[in-house]
Amino acid sequence: MTYSTGENAAIDDGATVGYGYDHFGEPARLGDDATVRAGTIVYADVTIGDGFTTGHNALVREATRMGDDVLVGTGSVIDGTTEIGSNVSIQSGVYVPTDTTVGSNVFFGPHAVLTNDPYPVRQDVDLEGPTIEDGVSVGANATILPGVTVGESAFVAAGAVVTEDVPPETLVVGAPGEHLPLPETLQAQNQI
Amino acid sequence: MTYSTGENAAIDDGATVGYGYDHFGEPARLGDDATVRAGTIVYADVTIGDGFTTGHNALVREATRMGDDVLVGTGSVIDGTTEIGSNVSIQSGVYVPTDTTVGSNVFFGPHAVLTNDPYPVRQDVDLEGPTIEDGVSVGANATILPGVTVGESAFVAAGAVVTEDVPPETLVVGAPGEHLPLPETLQAQNQI
Amino acid sequence: MTYSTGENAAIDDGATVGYGYDHFGEPARLGDDATVRAGTIVYADVTIGDGFTTGHNALVREATRMGDDVLVGTGSVIDGTTEIGSNVSIQSGVYVPTDTTVGSNVFFGPHAVLTNDPYPVRQDVDLEGPTIEDGVSVGANATILPGVTVGESAFVAAGAVVTEDVPPETLVVGAPGEHLPLPETLQAQNQI
Repeated sequence: MTYSTGENAAIDDGATVGYGYDHFGEPARLGDDATVRAGTIVYADVTIGDGFTTGHNALVREATRMGDDVLVGTGSVIDGTTEIGSNVSIQSGVYVPTDTTVGSNVFFGPHAVLTNDPYPVRQDVDLEGPTIEDGVSVGANATILPGVTVGESAFVAAGAVVTEDVPPETLVVGAPGEHLPLPETLQAQNQI
Repeated sequence: MTYSTGENAAIDDGATVGYGYDHFGEPARLGDDATVRAGTIVYADVTIGDGFTTGHNALVREATRMGDDVLVGTGSVIDGTTEIGSNVSIQSGVYVPTDTTVGSNVFFGPHAVLTNDPYPVRQDVDLEGPTIEDGVSVGANATILPGVTVGESAFVAAGAVVTEDVPPETLVVGAPGEHLPLPETLQAQNQI
Repeated sequence: MTYSTGENAAIDDGATVGYGYDHFGEPARLGDDATVRAGTIVYADVTIGDGFTTGHNALVREATRMGDDVLVGTGSVIDGTTEIGSNVSIQSGVYVPTDTTVGSNVFFGPHAVLTNDPYPVRQDVDLEGPTIEDGVSVGANATILPGVTVGESAFVAAGAVVTEDVPPETLVVGAPGEHLPLPETLQAQNQI
């Protein structure tokens, strides 16, 4: 038994839940109403709430915890040892490295890339994923640097490169990202 | 029967054509000389012309229509309800959202990302994919914002972020993208 | 027989090594201690040294040569006819086109994109992949244009677009990329 689910699970033929790895511990646990589409792989030692839905060819590695109503889009990679809240939409081709913290009501546009290695192969530092607080939206193809905190309800524009901590209710545009007040049309009270 | 093809189809073991979804309608239809490589999934309710070729682990979702001689590269995602013309080359890792319109003789470089949601989880607006007119080239890792029209034979440089409509025969560079006259070396009369 | 390995090979069920293509020649050859994870495809006519490791759903196409201790991360694509040295780390979602040359001790961050077509569908030129010299680090979501040489121990920042040759020991930031002296914290003597 490599995994357990709640009620109404739909695991496609060609999807793998509970993939065993070196330090295999517990079977993967999915809540009610899980939909895992063909080509997607969920590792052992993963615990996910109700309403989990994936696209195809996505990957969720070990020691990841997610709340309810999380979508992991086609080709997205959640690289393990990561905490994700509830009502989180991860569109297609998103990369989330190890040791990342994501709050609730968060949106990642297609191909958003988070990172956790500030000096790759230059210094032997601890990997440190970013922290994405509640209500944040990250635009398509945006890049978020290691260890950065993106504050509550901030909005990272498509293609922006986030190089430093972002205060709450802030718009980030450009590369490197410039911080601007959040325009009316992107206010959190509009969140749906 | 989940799909039909014309003559000379080569569908790999490990490829799926006619993947059933909630609102399953018609089997997928591919024309002559289709090549679909292992790991690629084509949904039901898709109609594609002759000479269709894919890489591996690509995805073409429901209600997509394509003309002849379309290439969908490895890992690319065509997210459904999209119209694509003929002689279109979609390189690896490209993302095309729902409700996108693509003309003929169009090139998408690797990891080009198109989007359709202007205010993700901020406002409840209709999704609106971009329109890519005939003869357009989109560079590697470029990002195109929702609802934008990229005019005939325009050239979007690698890494550019297209935030507003692009006139025909225009070069777009930078983030946000600046509009420049198309240099001689990129004139449409050179198109091959 | 589609491939051979040295000792201690671990090829997952659901991985394919020695995928046959039109001009099939030799079986794929992997050295000792190879780990190829489910969903990954390695073509025929590929020769790789010891300690080869992949994530899931990666692709290594024909006529690729790699040294020892190369990692190819989940969803990365090595598009064939490419030379890669030893001690090379290719993170998730990286794209390496045909005719690319990569030295040893090189790092590619997640979603780095290399290109080989300077005038897509505009001029009928030879494809020319970039040359990445020894000790180079390429940041997440960076883009490298065709034919460019990135010199020894240079560091391409996350999200940068490399449009011209980069001298050794140089930092590249922004889009288009600006060349700066390499800061102390990124000096090659720190390489691990």
